[in-house]
Amino acid sequence: MKIALLQLNVTVGDLAGNARRIEQAARDSAKAGAQLAVSSELALLGYPPRDLLLDRALLEQAQETTNRLARSLDGVIALLLGTVEPNLADRGRSVRNVVQLLKDGNVRAGTTKVLLPTYDVFDEDRYFEPGAGSSPLQFAGTTLGLTICEDVWNDAQFWPHPRYHLDPVEVLAGQVQTLINLSASPFHRGKQVLRERMLGHTARRHGKPLLYINQVGGNDELIFDGRSCAFDARGQLLGRAQAFREDVLLVELPSEGELVPGRAEPDLAGEEEVWQALVLGTRDYTHKCGFQQGIVALSGGIDSALTAAVVCAALGPANVVGVMMPSPYSSRGSLDDSARLAGNLGIETMKLPIEPAMQAMEQILAPAFAGMQTDVTEENIQARIRGTLVMALSNKFNRLVFITGNKSETAVGYNTLYGCTAGALAVIADLYKGEVYRLAYWLNRNGEVIPEDTLSKPPSAELRPDQRDQDTLPPYDVLDAILYGYIEEGHTSAELIEAGNDPQTVHRVLKLLRQAEFKRRQLPPALKVSARAFGMGWRMPIARR
Amino acid sequence: MKIALLQLNVTVGDLAGNARRIEQAARDSAKAGAQLAVSSELALLGYPPRDLLLDRALLEQAQETTNRLARSLDGVIALLLGTVEPNLADRGRSVRNVVQLLKDGNVRAGTTKVLLPTYDVFDEDRYFEPGAGSSPLQFAGTTLGLTICEDVWNDAQFWPHPRYHLDPVEVLAGQVQTLINLSASPFHRGKQVLRERMLGHTARRHGKPLLYINQVGGNDELIFDGRSCAFDARGQLLGRAQAFREDVLLVELPSEGELVPGRAEPDLAGEEEVWQALVLGTRDYTHKCGFQQGIVALSGGIDSALTAAVVCAALGPANVVGVMMPSPYSSRGSLDDSARLAGNLGIETMKLPIEPAMQAMEQILAPAFAGMQTDVTEENIQARIRGTLVMALSNKFNRLVFITGNKSETAVGYNTLYGCTAGALAVIADLYKGEVYRLAYWLNRNGEVIPEDTLSKPPSAELRPDQRDQDTLPPYDVLDAILYGYIEEGHTSAELIEAGNDPQTVHRVLKLLRQAEFKRRQLPPALKVSARAFGMGWRMPIARR
Repeated sequence: MKIALLQLNVTVGDLAGNARRIEQAARDSAKAGAQLAVSSELALLGYPPRDLLLDRALLEQAQETTNRLARSLDGVIALLLGTVEPNLADRGRSVRNVVQLLKDGNVRAGTTKVLLPTYDVFDEDRYFEPGAGSSPLQFAGTTLGLTICEDVWNDAQFWPHPRYHLDPVEVLAGQVQTLINLSASPFHRGKQVLRERMLGHTARRHGKPLLYINQVGGNDELIFDGRSCAFDARGQLLGRAQAFREDVLLVELPSEGELVPGRAEPDLAGEEEVWQALVLGTRDYTHKCGFQQGIVALSGGIDSALTAAVVCAALGPANVVGVMMPSPYSSRGSLDDSARLAGNLGIETMKLPIEPAMQAMEQILAPAFAGMQTDVTEENIQARIRGTLVMALSNKFNRLVFITGNKSETAVGYNTLYGCTAGALAVIADLYKGEVYRLAYWLNRNGEVIPEDTLSKPPSAELRPDQRDQDTLPPYDVLDAILYGYIEEGHTSAELIEAGNDPQTVHRVLKLLRQAEFKRRQLPPALKVSARAFGMGWRMPIARR
Repeated sequence: MKIALLQLNVTVGDLAGNARRIEQAARDSAKAGAQLAVSSELALLGYPPRDLLLDRALLEQAQETTNRLARSLDGVIALLLGTVEPNLADRGRSVRNVVQLLKDGNVRAGTTKVLLPTYDVFDEDRYFEPGAGSSPLQFAGTTLGLTICEDVWNDAQFWPHPRYHLDPVEVLAGQVQTLINLSASPFHRGKQVLRERMLGHTARRHGKPLLYINQVGGNDELIFDGRSCAFDARGQLLGRAQAFREDVLLVELPSEGELVPGRAEPDLAGEEEVWQALVLGTRDYTHKCGFQQGIVALSGGIDSALTAAVVCAALGPANVVGVMMPSPYSSRGSLDDSARLAGNLGIETMKLPIEPAMQAMEQILAPAFAGMQTDVTEENIQARIRGTLVMALSNKFNRLVFITGNKSETAVGYNTLYGCTAGALAVIADLYKGEVYRLAYWLNRNGEVIPEDTLSKPPSAELRPDQRDQDTLPPYDVLDAILYGYIEEGHTSAELIEAGNDPQTVHRVLKLLRQAEFKRRQLPPALKVSARAFGMGWRMPIARR
């Protein structure tokens, strides 16, 4: 029997569009000889639907759409579809996260998700009533064991500290011939290596082939990387779909015996992996919001250069404008570097010198500020004038603004709210400054994209004469190490100091991190590429002590 | 036996400060004859601690602080303290939400929270490993039944559709003489009426006195209203602490027989209740963020007038500046109304005419905008110039900016991101326009606070000549009814139309609501006074169809 793993780029809430996409892929799979197609988790709604799940009309629409899809595919192919169903019991939450089998024009129960992730970016306990456990599904003379995403992430022989008390796969595996997991597993650096290690372990432990279908595409800050895959009963990888693209992986599953080796796309890692994630996330956010074109403010620095390069790869150079907004503190080099970058990328530029607005603001505020010292206020005014200008371009030309801040500066608040943070999407806000450099060097591996001078000059916000980031912040390698240890690795300040970091610097950095919470609360979505990103997976109080 | 219910205003994360506050109130209670003091839920950490719960150092600090507190209170009074403890089992989440008994210098287990709210603003499944159920606690010859907040909200005889499968009170009640619930239950309009009805039912159903201790104070967008209370075994209210203030309610509990009637503060309702909530929320946010002073932009309209009145009541008139930023489109009346309001409130004002900045922006953008029509872009520029100016005042004078948008305009996006939305806290963003008027009329009940002309003139953003809100939006009574039906009552568009709303208007309003999601994502915290507010309890995707 041939099974098709449908790795599709679905849009949250677009039930009709997602159904069309699933139907087309299922029909194509039938033509290629498949008897069964399998979607990713909640493919009909797009993951994560978030509070759309509280909308009763949408739940009804999901059921109607599923019924229609079953009738359309009648006699063509059977489909295991990730969707929702209402919980009709007199207790519990209102919805179930389910797989349904669409076959011969009918819709039958497949399974209900048992383990509901409620950590990091996940909120599934907010919506779903869990299933008690999965039953084997008879299909075409074989027995399938269906699970949904998190259900396969709690193997006590793999994880030192399982999050849940039940392992749904352990319960199910003995009763079935093949394990199938429908997922919507968001990307972060290196996650596929972990997934394949865990899934291979699970297949081997239970001695069953395991098919894994993942969603692909960007939905707000989350990027789904696809890379659906198949393992034989010894835990060997026998097939892998493409990363960061729609793909349908056909798997040959004999009724007796082992999985047949299939197509295994080469995996991605390192800078290439992050680059493709950012490009996909930027493109999907833009298009799924109904836009085609983008604006990036170019400062001559590395952050805006890398952001422009990503946006350019995502939308095409013809759809990107780079805006230079020099002040009297901008260096000649910054303008030259921006122009050179624009030339390398092949994008249009626009130059809007901000001095007239600086003077006007100074004039308006002169009576209020009489006798006061110049301070960070005047720097923020410059940034906010720039924010106002890029938003004016956005409004007038219907283009999205992409902001350029990195994770290091977002962490410590080295940015101006409503200034450099004004825009629709933060493209590189989950990359530390050091990672920004690494990605920029990688991008230049076959020739200059990011100008050499942008890479070599010391970082500066150019908001006052001869300003350098390092006047205000610790050196970026020191800063990044402390932030990474605290945010990604969960170390305490005591542990960071024990590891050799300067105590004063640790305390200062963590204080800055706390104090910048009010700024982060007001940022646009930031593409997540790390295991712990600012955004929906970072929920800190602002008023605290 | 006398029991003291400690209704205290704790600050999130301030373990040392909260411990001092609890200790002082416990000592005072001992002097007043109490043998046992009871705090609110998680009183040591302040509710909601959110992702601070993922900080291992904080959890260790909580244990140390609790031990110290036990030693300090040794021989003074026993204390039931809401706090956290690590989950040391080899499975499950890392923390438990517990009550501990501090007595004779020792710390003993009290109970672990069983039901973990994970809906609206609550995320407790994100952090806590649930308890299996509470055991009776022997104390001074009596048997106490401890539960924590949500544990008392799942009575199947009270709720038509219980959210959970277990009722911890049902299990416990038969084994104890008195029920005690430690809560951190955030305020919304009318919630106390519901609480007292439910708690009275529970006491009556089980035939046991019930003591309920609630947190008081604002923590970010949540306002805790206190109103701790006591019910006898027939479900009659025998005591109620003050609303929106710290208070200690002493309850007399004979070892045999019934609760003795105690002090019952009058309850609040209607506009008074909302007013006090907003004042407390504004004051606590400001002070807990380390600020004393505020800025409100005064437009002459009702939203900014009401916001200024709240901020003034919260911080004192001497700590508030009203900023008027007229443009050529501002009416003379608007300036007069703002001046009159400032006079009524007794606050300082400042006038910053924005025309020079408008001209500068026009000049800078002229080449880019050549040949283009004037549109909403130019209106947004005015709003963003004002945002830049108030933030400049904020930066220079270290004052928080309070933004003035209401729920109706926040819902449909009738605001300018980085313009009128630039600031630290949204004071009235959970009040529909009609509610803003009602509160303003209530505020004027003993004499003019909000100028009469501000109340009587048609709402206008004054961003172009002769502009009226009603040129762009449906009349506010129509708009508010649709929004309330959809957001608060959970009606579908079909149901709203069936209820008599114009179909086109319903579809238009709900489309505007969806399209404004990207703006709401970037708003500052907004004080929650409704059952469903924008903010942490409203989690919608942006890119969707």
